[in-house]
Amino acid sequence: MKSAYTILLSILISGLSYGQANLKSETNELATQLTDKEVFKQIFDTEMTSGKCYGVLEKLCAEMPHRLSGSENAGKAVAYMKKVMESYKFDTVYLQPVMVPHWVRGEKETAFFSSGTDQISVNICALGGSVGTREKGLTANVIEVKSVEELKALEDTDVKGKIVFLNGEMNPKYIRTFQAYSETGEQRWTGPWVAQEKGAIGVIVRSLTTIVDKNPHTGSKGTREGNNGIPSAAISTYHANQLSKTLKVNPDVKFSMTMHCETLPDRLSYNVIGEIGGSEKPEEIVVVGGHLDAWDNGEGAHDDGAGCVQSVEVLRLFKKLNLTPKRTVRVVLFMNEENGLKGGKAFADSVKNQNQNIIAAIESDAGGFTPRYFVCQTHDARLEKVTSWLPLFEPYSVYAVEYGHAGADISPLDPEKTLLIGYRPDSQRYFDYHHAATDKFEAVNQRELELGAANMTALVWMLSNYGL
Amino acid sequence: MKSAYTILLSILISGLSYGQANLKSETNELATQLTDKEVFKQIFDTEMTSGKCYGVLEKLCAEMPHRLSGSENAGKAVAYMKKVMESYKFDTVYLQPVMVPHWVRGEKETAFFSSGTDQISVNICALGGSVGTREKGLTANVIEVKSVEELKALEDTDVKGKIVFLNGEMNPKYIRTFQAYSETGEQRWTGPWVAQEKGAIGVIVRSLTTIVDKNPHTGSKGTREGNNGIPSAAISTYHANQLSKTLKVNPDVKFSMTMHCETLPDRLSYNVIGEIGGSEKPEEIVVVGGHLDAWDNGEGAHDDGAGCVQSVEVLRLFKKLNLTPKRTVRVVLFMNEENGLKGGKAFADSVKNQNQNIIAAIESDAGGFTPRYFVCQTHDARLEKVTSWLPLFEPYSVYAVEYGHAGADISPLDPEKTLLIGYRPDSQRYFDYHHAATDKFEAVNQRELELGAANMTALVWMLSNYGL
Repeated sequence: MKSAYTILLSILISGLSYGQANLKSETNELATQLTDKEVFKQIFDTEMTSGKCYGVLEKLCAEMPHRLSGSENAGKAVAYMKKVMESYKFDTVYLQPVMVPHWVRGEKETAFFSSGTDQISVNICALGGSVGTREKGLTANVIEVKSVEELKALEDTDVKGKIVFLNGEMNPKYIRTFQAYSETGEQRWTGPWVAQEKGAIGVIVRSLTTIVDKNPHTGSKGTREGNNGIPSAAISTYHANQLSKTLKVNPDVKFSMTMHCETLPDRLSYNVIGEIGGSEKPEEIVVVGGHLDAWDNGEGAHDDGAGCVQSVEVLRLFKKLNLTPKRTVRVVLFMNEENGLKGGKAFADSVKNQNQNIIAAIESDAGGFTPRYFVCQTHDARLEKVTSWLPLFEPYSVYAVEYGHAGADISPLDPEKTLLIGYRPDSQRYFDYHHAATDKFEAVNQRELELGAANMTALVWMLSNYGL
Repeated sequence: MKSAYTILLSILISGLSYGQANLKSETNELATQLTDKEVFKQIFDTEMTSGKCYGVLEKLCAEMPHRLSGSENAGKAVAYMKKVMESYKFDTVYLQPVMVPHWVRGEKETAFFSSGTDQISVNICALGGSVGTREKGLTANVIEVKSVEELKALEDTDVKGKIVFLNGEMNPKYIRTFQAYSETGEQRWTGPWVAQEKGAIGVIVRSLTTIVDKNPHTGSKGTREGNNGIPSAAISTYHANQLSKTLKVNPDVKFSMTMHCETLPDRLSYNVIGEIGGSEKPEEIVVVGGHLDAWDNGEGAHDDGAGCVQSVEVLRLFKKLNLTPKRTVRVVLFMNEENGLKGGKAFADSVKNQNQNIIAAIESDAGGFTPRYFVCQTHDARLEKVTSWLPLFEPYSVYAVEYGHAGADISPLDPEKTLLIGYRPDSQRYFDYHHAATDKFEAVNQRELELGAANMTALVWMLSNYGL
């Protein structure tokens, strides 16, 4: 055990300090003043030796996979994460009601294409929100394009009555894979609508992944009021390549797809919220969160079970280390990020209606990979302030703070009032798993997940202690 | 295709340039001056769109796993990598003979421990260089220690006739896992000898990994001239915990192990070397390499197939992009890093004997993970010079240059004459696989591997162009 003298000495000689923290010693109840550097060390040492978030994720993935909004498992996940927060004895734990879309995939999709006498099975999965096909499926000729722009340039007569095959590849040259996702994502989001306007009767979209394999990657397509759209599915990159190659030698390929998906009436669900009250300025609030819903084909491990369990871990570490935040810290597990963002909107509405002062909101929704940086969605002095804390983070593998879009769930908050922050782990592997059946617990490394949780905790510590 | 005007313009407006490069256009054979920034972009764009190292690694792992020095697969790997280099049309490709140890594991080890009437099977694997047990195995009481220091402090009478169980855990608090490996590694390296000196008849060492699972992780123990040592094995962390727990309630546990390993006479093997001659100062040489041998239980994917295929890729990219290095660049695939370092020593001897001027040597032997930084094994101006190039690397995810130990294979070179450099990818997952059966091709991510190869190529480009 450290002597009081040692503690005093370490404060005096500490090379880097932005102030001091109230930390009650677990062993002797003596309130001791620690530097931020020492608080950081306590946070990381504790998380790397006795972190709990990996175990919580394991159970979430094993017992509540496929937790798309409105599903039974989404409901179970709400109850489970509430129970976890309660077991950690946060000051407040509650559910925030939110009506969410209830789209169901139904029986697994089937698809094949025929070229001459050959019939080749391919792996597809309906895009979220898509209508199904007729019972006997849909069969039509295929027209391939590489982008929405290329589709727009076609004559309607070239598209009418056909299945549009949007086969754009994510650009492997982008070092950060989210940049490629943003760029190519348009074909999944806008493509189905442009195709419908031109008279197409179905759409297949190349899966948004940086690898070539046989797993289709689902995701939402854009919505239009009062228009159900046409049957739209993602096809695996392997089969997209196979289809494209065949079309080059035989443009008369027939594609057949059967999908049983449908949209049911909206259901009641919840954001799960926990809080530790601030000791000095409780009316100023720091939010940290991820989204609890996940696509129905995988376990929602990286997307976004990881972000949820990390966010809950932030508050657990505050309790475990007896860190008393000067400002209130709040964890929010958002419902329905994947196909509606209703949770994020409901939360922002409640903040506005109650005139709450959320000074900062951090979202973790980029996977449970090894830490790299934070983004702040502002160019003003708040970005500089967060950047000034960087030397504290560098020993723990976060090495940059940058401008950037922070995250979907927190995007409905007012960015003038709330500093929107995104946690950014390494992105190289993310799209191997994203929205696919491979997004499983086994794909998450414990140390990488915990390092993320600890870095998020450290940032919440700084924000809650110093404000902005 | 870029017009000449566009190329000229991009040179003029390029924000960051340390000089210019000779690069023959592939399409029109026109020699064009490019900035370093542009060369970097060409290197990364080419690698991320048409890299070859992942495919080479796949074949190496699939057809030449378990390629420990002296084995048939080590020989095949030498022939294969030579053929790969020849197919890339390097200026010179040759083999450098080296006599290597030939240790064989023989039939798979078995082990169990008995406590009362319970008999529990555990997973062990002999440490490299260990002698085997008698045919019927070895059975004895166990004495557990947490470190070599603790072992040294024991009375000889407490150790005599027993099996010493070195159960130190890698410290999870170190953010960089190699730091924990260096610290705890002593129990595998020194532990068996200290135990023998105190009269132990066998040694089991807790596997050096940051996770708890059932895979034993092998590795070398230290050697002593004229002393074969005692049977020494690694035990899986899961079983180490089980054994330790049992010993706490029953110190009279009996441990039994059977190992069939033995050391055969040394065999002839080779370093595999390829070269592209320098255009202006061919007598100054930049080396890049990894080690071709790998432990006999896995495929040697991260350790160190990754480093080998990345190093070969460096020269392939020079050829592919028609980059003419001013100084000679040489790839060396070292033999026998794992249990003897004979390849590294033979290479250093040849450099000394031929009075070659190796200005820098880069080793990649820390896995094929996402890039983080480079270490230079010097505090002098050469470190500053490499650090000054950092802005060029930052867009490609290497963000630091630091002092550090560079790598085993290049360590016999004279650090005054040669700047020793280590490529450092992220280390969180490395010890999940290190020296275990899980070190397989599937554990390597293509983009992470390629980003490493491209960063190494970019550094070799700078070193070969500007010297030190």
